[in-house]
Amino acid sequence: MADAPDAGALPSLGVLGGTGPQGRGLGLRLAVAGHRVVLGSRDPARAADAAGRLRTDHGVAGDRLTGSGNADAATCDVVVVTLPFDGVEPTLAALADTLDGAVVISCVNRLGFDERGPYPIPVPQGSAAELVAALAPGAAVVGAFHHVPARRLSRDTGPIAQDVLVTGDDDEACRTVCAMAGRIPGMRGVRAGPLRLTRPVEELTAALVAVNTRYRVAAGVRVTGLDAVAGD
Amino acid sequence: MADAPDAGALPSLGVLGGTGPQGRGLGLRLAVAGHRVVLGSRDPARAADAAGRLRTDHGVAGDRLTGSGNADAATCDVVVVTLPFDGVEPTLAALADTLDGAVVISCVNRLGFDERGPYPIPVPQGSAAELVAALAPGAAVVGAFHHVPARRLSRDTGPIAQDVLVTGDDDEACRTVCAMAGRIPGMRGVRAGPLRLTRPVEELTAALVAVNTRYRVAAGVRVTGLDAVAGD
Repeated sequence: MADAPDAGALPSLGVLGGTGPQGRGLGLRLAVAGHRVVLGSRDPARAADAAGRLRTDHGVAGDRLTGSGNADAATCDVVVVTLPFDGVEPTLAALADTLDGAVVISCVNRLGFDERGPYPIPVPQGSAAELVAALAPGAAVVGAFHHVPARRLSRDTGPIAQDVLVTGDDDEACRTVCAMAGRIPGMRGVRAGPLRLTRPVEELTAALVAVNTRYRVAAGVRVTGLDAVAGD
Repeated sequence: MADAPDAGALPSLGVLGGTGPQGRGLGLRLAVAGHRVVLGSRDPARAADAAGRLRTDHGVAGDRLTGSGNADAATCDVVVVTLPFDGVEPTLAALADTLDGAVVISCVNRLGFDERGPYPIPVPQGSAAELVAALAPGAAVVGAFHHVPARRLSRDTGPIAQDVLVTGDDDEACRTVCAMAGRIPGMRGVRAGPLRLTRPVEELTAALVAVNTRYRVAAGVRVTGLDAVAGD
């Protein structure tokens, strides 16, 4: 923690649906990196409890990582949506005004599972990220962190060697999110085009889950050919 | 070439649309790896010419890499489709019977370009690979080689460090294609689920083209977390 900059220098991060594995994991990693993080939940007591356990398990200061309702989390500078797909519409419809001017990160994947394994379920807006953009029209929406191994994130705070594909139409918001990805050891943000290219990134998650099942691993993605140029 | 096994030991490879950069590149690399390769084209003289230039430029033996019509290429053990999307339906409709029993690899990406860059165009069958499967119902269709940097393949025969995501419903065909990917130096085949998961692999090509444009690179993909387990 000695190298973490003062929390005031970095944007605050709210996590909608922050008590699931991905929300807790990203919240922990970015709190350790120096962001002030608010895990949000429909049940504020549950979020406070999750934040308290992460603080204890990983030695994070009490003002760095807290839990509250989703509405409180939505007041942060950057808000990451780690809700299950079916929770996106009801939760964001109630928070649209609060999210005006925020950077909103969608990590949402809409996957189904049957006897042949995982498969992507089409989203009428093109992708879950574009659905988020439709529900929060005053926010700068960015797709990112779809492929991070959720449970691995909060197991410990060691490096995770993979890239985060970042899609979005707002250049400054994309830079902010790339920088956040780069604060997680081993990770690198890679700009992968405008928001309309989020669908393949989301749907690729199904193929990575298939890889995990076949090879019994926690697969991620690196973009090759990019040494020393990415992250901006 | 000293280490290349006898061509008789490996399946022969036909390339439909073999005079484009991707067809020539894959044909060259797999001929160097020991496969007997037939580049196919609507214009057999053009294919013969392309094969002749590759043989001269890279010192490949004359019986290893030849050019002919698409119908001849389609008689090989493994047939790779490197046609532009609009050529898939007319070409394969005429070759369906010939392809009975073959392993057919689809590398086809259906991309559009506008002022905002590349974008995927939906395919009614779900993916170009599933269209290929519908047109060649007696073939074992596999999706692979969507992300290889086409011009890099035939510039020289040095290593290309990236993974080939392999999708398909026929286990033996997928193994055959993974083994072929593994014969190109630096490459590795990774099984990424059944054929229905080919869409995100195809559409991800648009995001990789966006990466190439932004960072001025030739991007590819590696699957992380897989060391020492992939390739089968």
